[in-house]
Amino acid sequence: MPFRVDMSDAANPTAALLVIGDEILSGRTKDVNIGATAEFCTDLAIDLMEVRVVPDVEDEIVAAVNALRVRYTYVFTTGGIGPTHDDITADAIARAFGVALPIDPEARAMLEARWQDRGIEPNAARLRMARIPEGASLIVNGVSAAPGFRIGNVHVMAGVPVIMRAMLEAIAPTLRGGRRVHSLTVVSRVGEGNIGGPLAALQQRFPDVKMGSYPRMGDGSVLTELVLRSPDEARLAEAAAAVRDMVAAEHRRAGLTDPDPY
Amino acid sequence: MPFRVDMSDAANPTAALLVIGDEILSGRTKDVNIGATAEFCTDLAIDLMEVRVVPDVEDEIVAAVNALRVRYTYVFTTGGIGPTHDDITADAIARAFGVALPIDPEARAMLEARWQDRGIEPNAARLRMARIPEGASLIVNGVSAAPGFRIGNVHVMAGVPVIMRAMLEAIAPTLRGGRRVHSLTVVSRVGEGNIGGPLAALQQRFPDVKMGSYPRMGDGSVLTELVLRSPDEARLAEAAAAVRDMVAAEHRRAGLTDPDPY
Repeated sequence: MPFRVDMSDAANPTAALLVIGDEILSGRTKDVNIGATAEFCTDLAIDLMEVRVVPDVEDEIVAAVNALRVRYTYVFTTGGIGPTHDDITADAIARAFGVALPIDPEARAMLEARWQDRGIEPNAARLRMARIPEGASLIVNGVSAAPGFRIGNVHVMAGVPVIMRAMLEAIAPTLRGGRRVHSLTVVSRVGEGNIGGPLAALQQRFPDVKMGSYPRMGDGSVLTELVLRSPDEARLAEAAAAVRDMVAAEHRRAGLTDPDPY
Repeated sequence: MPFRVDMSDAANPTAALLVIGDEILSGRTKDVNIGATAEFCTDLAIDLMEVRVVPDVEDEIVAAVNALRVRYTYVFTTGGIGPTHDDITADAIARAFGVALPIDPEARAMLEARWQDRGIEPNAARLRMARIPEGASLIVNGVSAAPGFRIGNVHVMAGVPVIMRAMLEAIAPTLRGGRRVHSLTVVSRVGEGNIGGPLAALQQRFPDVKMGSYPRMGDGSVLTELVLRSPDEARLAEAAAAVRDMVAAEHRRAGLTDPDPY
């Protein structure tokens, strides 16, 4: 069994992202919210531990939310909070928490103010966006008048990327961040097969510095990025120096004329 | 509770995708395998029902594989089959199935042939890539000499996108496809709030044609794509005509000068 390093810093809050939408699972829409949420979490030193993508099926959303919310500090959801019949996220969240889903007066007022500004008629479909599970607080943002909401540790946000990002910015001050993880990257021009053995040995020597190896395939050339991560900058620098020495030695062994590719 | 349509055609095989890798959860690497697998499944009329992203933690991979493989016709995994210490997918799959993980003679021969061709030295790290769970068959591909493998209904593939796609092509002839779903898109220039009500009514009138509504936000303009899907082309055409009439009526009501935006 290979040597393993736990990804999470025990001190850090954890999170899961639930992406809701048939269009992602059919391939029609290419998700970009996973990457945006991952970067958001990394910036706050929240360990994103799991992502799930589920269809617009209420039972699936309920099951996923209930599985994730007991396991992680935070759950983020994206998608399914618009005005059409396939937007069922609010229904699912209310059911997951066992609460009612009334029209929220504050959400309604926000929507009506926007509609009045723009000469848009209120109607039943639009009012669906003001349905907020009992006990939730609103996630207000500058892009869309339709709010997301937070209930317990679950943050329900829009699927449209520009609105999703605005909602992430809106909730950032309410989240507890962790201990920032620093990272350094060492680039190897010899393949993973050459450095796999010595890298594993270095990982054992520095168990508190997580080492990942990410090969890239380009135009026939080999490039492997070795990413080192640790909350301790001094240890990180020490480990990075050892990895650089190892890579330089492997470069010499492989007869590369340029011993310093990073 | 809103009207719901089951995404899956009961006749179709189902699938889940398990993306394995810390680099996706940290945001360092932006996943493209979800979209590629989704399109692959749609082309074969396999219903992709769920995606999970988990870290390079063996317990997490084992738990996810075992949860998914009993639930869906096929499970696809991507990532973690390279030669470095953080590549633990084969270990996790062997543990999930309760089988040993020996060096496979066929995989070893394929790797050694490639190494000999290119003057690459065999070593312990490289040989990790020949470890195949007992009872699995190899997924051979033209891009990489390191094979993926299939055990039971689980297909274990590489994380590097170009290799992942080659492996999908390699397994395609071995998968049972479903009944092809046809789709038509109707574009609306009035917002989801306008068409939400009449669209829900049409969805109730055509329960066998799945209707999705996907707003796009551009430079202040409104564009909503209504995507209709059905295995029955005649019913699809009938439903699309009804949706087009509805959208045209909403366009007239909104005073749009161009009544035909699609």
